[in-house]
Amino acid sequence: MTLRIAIIGAGPSGLAQLRAFESAERQGIEIPEVVCFEKQEDWGGMWNYTWRTGLDEYGEPVHASMYRYLWSNGPKEALEFADYSFEEHFGRPIPSYPPREVLWDYIVGRVKKGNLRRFIRFRAPVRDVTYDDATGKFTVTVRDLEKDHVYSEVFDYVVVASGHFSTPNVPDFPGLSKFPGRVLHAHDFRDAREFTGKRVLCVGSSYSSEDIGTQSYKYGAKEIIFSYRSKPMGFAFPEAFSEVPLLLKVEGNTAFFKDGTTREVDVIVLCTGYQHYFPFLPDELRLKTNNRLWPLGLYKGVVWEKNPKLMYLGMQDQYYTFNMFDAQAWFARDVMLGKVNLPSYEEMHADSLAWREKEEASETASDDIDFQCAYIRDLIDRTDYPDFKPEIMAEQFKEWKHHKEEDVLTYRHHSFRSTLTGNMAPPLKTTWMQQTDDSLTAFLANN
Amino acid sequence: MTLRIAIIGAGPSGLAQLRAFESAERQGIEIPEVVCFEKQEDWGGMWNYTWRTGLDEYGEPVHASMYRYLWSNGPKEALEFADYSFEEHFGRPIPSYPPREVLWDYIVGRVKKGNLRRFIRFRAPVRDVTYDDATGKFTVTVRDLEKDHVYSEVFDYVVVASGHFSTPNVPDFPGLSKFPGRVLHAHDFRDAREFTGKRVLCVGSSYSSEDIGTQSYKYGAKEIIFSYRSKPMGFAFPEAFSEVPLLLKVEGNTAFFKDGTTREVDVIVLCTGYQHYFPFLPDELRLKTNNRLWPLGLYKGVVWEKNPKLMYLGMQDQYYTFNMFDAQAWFARDVMLGKVNLPSYEEMHADSLAWREKEEASETASDDIDFQCAYIRDLIDRTDYPDFKPEIMAEQFKEWKHHKEEDVLTYRHHSFRSTLTGNMAPPLKTTWMQQTDDSLTAFLANN
Repeated sequence: MTLRIAIIGAGPSGLAQLRAFESAERQGIEIPEVVCFEKQEDWGGMWNYTWRTGLDEYGEPVHASMYRYLWSNGPKEALEFADYSFEEHFGRPIPSYPPREVLWDYIVGRVKKGNLRRFIRFRAPVRDVTYDDATGKFTVTVRDLEKDHVYSEVFDYVVVASGHFSTPNVPDFPGLSKFPGRVLHAHDFRDAREFTGKRVLCVGSSYSSEDIGTQSYKYGAKEIIFSYRSKPMGFAFPEAFSEVPLLLKVEGNTAFFKDGTTREVDVIVLCTGYQHYFPFLPDELRLKTNNRLWPLGLYKGVVWEKNPKLMYLGMQDQYYTFNMFDAQAWFARDVMLGKVNLPSYEEMHADSLAWREKEEASETASDDIDFQCAYIRDLIDRTDYPDFKPEIMAEQFKEWKHHKEEDVLTYRHHSFRSTLTGNMAPPLKTTWMQQTDDSLTAFLANN
Repeated sequence: MTLRIAIIGAGPSGLAQLRAFESAERQGIEIPEVVCFEKQEDWGGMWNYTWRTGLDEYGEPVHASMYRYLWSNGPKEALEFADYSFEEHFGRPIPSYPPREVLWDYIVGRVKKGNLRRFIRFRAPVRDVTYDDATGKFTVTVRDLEKDHVYSEVFDYVVVASGHFSTPNVPDFPGLSKFPGRVLHAHDFRDAREFTGKRVLCVGSSYSSEDIGTQSYKYGAKEIIFSYRSKPMGFAFPEAFSEVPLLLKVEGNTAFFKDGTTREVDVIVLCTGYQHYFPFLPDELRLKTNNRLWPLGLYKGVVWEKNPKLMYLGMQDQYYTFNMFDAQAWFARDVMLGKVNLPSYEEMHADSLAWREKEEASETASDDIDFQCAYIRDLIDRTDYPDFKPEIMAEQFKEWKHHKEEDVLTYRHHSFRSTLTGNMAPPLKTTWMQQTDDSLTAFLANN
């Protein structure tokens, strides 16, 4: 009987899994019956921009945390798919930091090349997954949104590829319930022009905060205040920016910080991260972790040790993204095709603990990058996914870190060399601040 | 063996069910084992205000559609609990249209009198309900949010009291994805001062629209534009207000309407209603209806005809609210206690169809009010819930409708007489527009 495989999510990691199977199929290998369940109306996951926030037209939580004016916050050369270069997609080299719509076009361009849509059921959020010890199979319960119909099917393997940047982590602060302006989590941030002329407080000091703050400034916010818990970002900022310690409370428009200072603010954006959230999984199948480079419980960062018929993709904190998901998906595929033999639970667990030990020994961002690079090297050496030279990318990430420290408003002006084509990216023709129309058309016409 | 009853939700309707059982218990009747599952951290349902929007701290959709400055939009005399007057709660008569915090205090005051908290498990959203024909019992699967643990228990009856004003109905309009300002559904509206100085477009012409528009104006919005699908509200409005036909599209800040006119707007609030949404129920137990006075499938508006062990409370479009939920809960209680004998499916269904026929014959708002009044009369004559004289309230509703037509900014200045105490409410001491601090303390001190 043909194996049946359920993939949850058709974003970059779910599509990587489909692509992995298709790649095997093209080599003449018989592949299992694959069904990919996607909540949204189209593929691309997080990259599928929507103006919607909160709940969608079917009452489902909106997946996207994508904002309208997002630009890649890492060089595209370090996230290039090993089997599809940016140059192949756009027909020419383009700058290293493309805006959202350009990246979306690239992601979708790769999967359009294949015949992947046949695997996907859209508007089909998974409600429940159970595993039956007696039969050794999963029952996956799904809601067909368009028909408002709930149904169940049986599968041999389940691949969780639903991402971990969709469910916000939203702390409370005293006084928020009486703050006379908008309070939102970064997840609900969409169009920066809403904040033109405003004093914006971004609580948090990681990517979302840096990005939403600089972007709001780009589109006319009057002042950007970053509040950090442990340490400031420490970038060189223009005068309109400032960094303050942790927010303690708000009273009216006044925000109070840990160092005793206060600021008047009009908007509070909680850039406080995301939760790994799998409401459709029972306790024994559910990954529980904070956002880190080596969550425990996953052999090779992929296989659920306690039940190796369950896979997770992309659940790590990420320097590497698209190509790491590919490397994982190729590995997961080979496990499911029986080409990789898994060791015993004890051996898998010991292997994971060894990685965790290395993760914990990591002290600097540079160490973290090397750690994730070593992980990817370990993965790609085990499958036929093309070697995209993650070690070169590791150096690119370190350079990128350095550029940001120099100037967070201009780091996107730098260029990197593709490990696939060997070609250097052209620089942006005008500054990132100047390029306010960042649509695909405008970006390609102006750069 | 003791019967086990699951109640889903501890808002006004779920609390009504608990109160109904407690009332029987006080009369010396042995009551079943009742477990009420509440998603939020406290009781009160919609009345439990939070600054949060979208997803809460556990990743659950935020229940509340409550805005900070909401005032009752109907006279409090028409929503008084038959067993607990406003005068008993506040120790004196208060004006007919209290703000949110005052109403919340009243709702909670009644249930605090009893020993109801013992029945409730907080932070416990229901994930799944299934019915087993063989055992005649329900399995209810619940997530314990604080422990991040999913568990199941078996029940004889299930009462769905989860409300129907939590899951927004959010249509799309061409151009929203490029609108340079905030687009939100009324569900996510919180503090009107966010819109001070702004031109606010409210799409929709029902209660949310009227309320959010007038409230935004009260707190300084520059212009309020209501867009209607079928007909304008037709109230007398000040100059800053206008009514336009259906929104067709937006381009930049320009909104285009069906009559060919355009307006420049800064904010778009979709006041487009709510969905009856029960993601935890399988097809055969799930009520599917739009918001109307007589949804089909519910005998006496309460009992799920196809499986009379399942009850729904408060699923109707509502003139009557709290006291209608009580009337329903008392009836549901008596069904579960075996005091009411249900007729056959055919008879129940025929009874519902007869009500539906009457509903459809209703032509005016006044007819609608009389229809719901007759329904409530039918219910309270079947149980020991005190007669709160719904016929008098029906006349109050008609008067209220009339006041609104006269002036939507001043209708809350009128007073009504309690059917319980016979006392007339005092008027507001200053206008609704003037009372910008509408906290419980300020309201009671100033009125």
